[in-house]
Amino acid sequence: MSTDPADLTARLVRCPSVTPEEGGAISLLEEALAAAGFDCIRADRGEVSNLIARWGDKGHARTFGFNGHTDVVPVGDPADWSAEPFGAELRDGWMYGRGTTDMKSGVAAFVAAAIDFVTETPPEGAILITVTGDEEGDAADGTRAILDRMAAEGEAMTVCLVGEPTCPETFGDMIKIGRRGSMSAHIVASGVQGHTAYPHRAKNPVPAMARLADRLASHTLDEGSEHFDPSTLAVTTIDTGNPATNVIPAACRMTVNLRFNDLHSSEALTRWMKSEAARVTEETGIEFAMTVRVSGESFLTPPGELSALIANAVQAETGVTPELSTSGGTSDARFIRAHCPVVEFGLVGQTMHQVDERVEVAQIGQLKSVYSRILKDWFA
Amino acid sequence: MSTDPADLTARLVRCPSVTPEEGGAISLLEEALAAAGFDCIRADRGEVSNLIARWGDKGHARTFGFNGHTDVVPVGDPADWSAEPFGAELRDGWMYGRGTTDMKSGVAAFVAAAIDFVTETPPEGAILITVTGDEEGDAADGTRAILDRMAAEGEAMTVCLVGEPTCPETFGDMIKIGRRGSMSAHIVASGVQGHTAYPHRAKNPVPAMARLADRLASHTLDEGSEHFDPSTLAVTTIDTGNPATNVIPAACRMTVNLRFNDLHSSEALTRWMKSEAARVTEETGIEFAMTVRVSGESFLTPPGELSALIANAVQAETGVTPELSTSGGTSDARFIRAHCPVVEFGLVGQTMHQVDERVEVAQIGQLKSVYSRILKDWFA
Repeated sequence: MSTDPADLTARLVRCPSVTPEEGGAISLLEEALAAAGFDCIRADRGEVSNLIARWGDKGHARTFGFNGHTDVVPVGDPADWSAEPFGAELRDGWMYGRGTTDMKSGVAAFVAAAIDFVTETPPEGAILITVTGDEEGDAADGTRAILDRMAAEGEAMTVCLVGEPTCPETFGDMIKIGRRGSMSAHIVASGVQGHTAYPHRAKNPVPAMARLADRLASHTLDEGSEHFDPSTLAVTTIDTGNPATNVIPAACRMTVNLRFNDLHSSEALTRWMKSEAARVTEETGIEFAMTVRVSGESFLTPPGELSALIANAVQAETGVTPELSTSGGTSDARFIRAHCPVVEFGLVGQTMHQVDERVEVAQIGQLKSVYSRILKDWFA
Repeated sequence: MSTDPADLTARLVRCPSVTPEEGGAISLLEEALAAAGFDCIRADRGEVSNLIARWGDKGHARTFGFNGHTDVVPVGDPADWSAEPFGAELRDGWMYGRGTTDMKSGVAAFVAAAIDFVTETPPEGAILITVTGDEEGDAADGTRAILDRMAAEGEAMTVCLVGEPTCPETFGDMIKIGRRGSMSAHIVASGVQGHTAYPHRAKNPVPAMARLADRLASHTLDEGSEHFDPSTLAVTTIDTGNPATNVIPAACRMTVNLRFNDLHSSEALTRWMKSEAARVTEETGIEFAMTVRVSGESFLTPPGELSALIANAVQAETGVTPELSTSGGTSDARFIRAHCPVVEFGLVGQTMHQVDERVEVAQIGQLKSVYSRILKDWFA
């Protein structure tokens, strides 16, 4: 009897697992996987629940990995929804609920595919499934904790497939083979407060910050690289909070967010921003303090055997030829890339994080079929 | 019997006249001036109380004007004061209280000087005293309302002396013969919100605003003029209020404050700022909306008979040679300058608007002496 991924999705959606709440989702998977013969480790850390489930020998040289998350973003005002956000209501072939797309259906599909695969055609090798309860939050105690625990336990993956929704329009249209890096810099400019009628007694940090913002934003970081779009820098906010038109303020704050390709590192970009700030300090006398937060470096799993195998499976099951892309935001693949080659493939992500998030029920079955074919081909 | 200006100051300080509250101050002056033979008109408008008091013939070609205000700025937390803010407490030769410097002492000094002058040596001509209850606030219904009412009633001044505190360090060290203009521009930059990972789908208003800020702030408006310091432009605040590092915001706000000399008009400066904004719009596609608020144009009463007469009186009574200056913020002289030549002279302003605002009691008497001598010399 095959495992129904839509039913498993519905049961996961009914677990109210808003980060960092586990909501029963991790335990449900642990139970299902243990019943199918997987060795399960709960790699919980801090407030976060995480699961490592292995079928086959620990550290086997031929271990296929799946990664995903069961935590979801908040629902907002439930009154805005046309369905109960944790109800998994079925309507006209769609299932409604927070996490139906991002990404309980993806987790359900690879868990169902893996259980059926090891049950029906036990492979020569191992399958390692990792599921975290913190991808949507800080992600400090999520997949990182899983990888730390794997290292401690001697667990390993040869390759890994992350089941995030990757398709922009049509199921099958995109596989992600890398991601741009992401980082933010928080900058404070400090001057000396004073009266606007006596500006020579003050030092205004606002125009100095404006100059730095203009310099950073007008710089062309690159024109893109072989597999990546151009790197971008966005000044997301400048704030002073000075309500008085006759007062020169003492300080001004700015945040910039960078999405960078494989031509850069967060370290080099930080050095560049600091040198631009130093130049403005020299020109204006205004000092800058900078705090940098790196979400992830850029990474690429160069097109090759793994991406070709996955693209063939997608093509065979959906009839669509997927684009190999590095576009979009970040995912936990940014942590896994340090462990093994990692590729991402999943459903159409259009309603993720939105009110009335929903998934076409038939697509969950198709996704399971793609994952099943990937396992079959990889172990062949 | 001469009128005691320190006693009158104390009685005014005990009127809690925080703008727009009259607090009894205007009525007290009306009563005192009426008793001395002045014709009084209450030129109240909106919430504001104003007084016009004339001794002598209405519209006399030789009418000396005094102008001042009895409203005061808020006291802040009374617990921060070492004296009751509306108590007029005397300690070591100083009188403490909100308005002791700015400018109930000035009003008391010219009212006392005028009453004694018309009583003891009735002049050939007229004296017109105007006192408003809204100089510290919007000033929309203050000295403007007085001037409107004067026009309606056929009242006029030949010259006017405003009794604001004008001396930076030592009593007698500065007369103001003009003021720079003051204006603020509130600018909103509008773009299109979006995700920082997909900046091509958004239009970020923040770097465009930063560029405009840098352009406006780095421009040298002038190097000063014969009687004026250089004009200045201060970017007082840029605000976005975007807490999300992965979101490009839809709008950004900025305020700039300009203090400008007689080489500029608010209209020409507005045109210049709008042309700079249009240039940035052309470069970036970001649209700007600008609202301008003009506090006052610059004005100058060129050094001449009036300023010489006042400077001589100051020198004779204090032994200090006053500087003729146009420095500092704005005052109601900006409205009066359209009516007649106007000059400002008063006490040392060091504690104005501060906690424990105070005045040296002896200086109130000295100020009355200066005003008395000015009246005597002008009518001679």
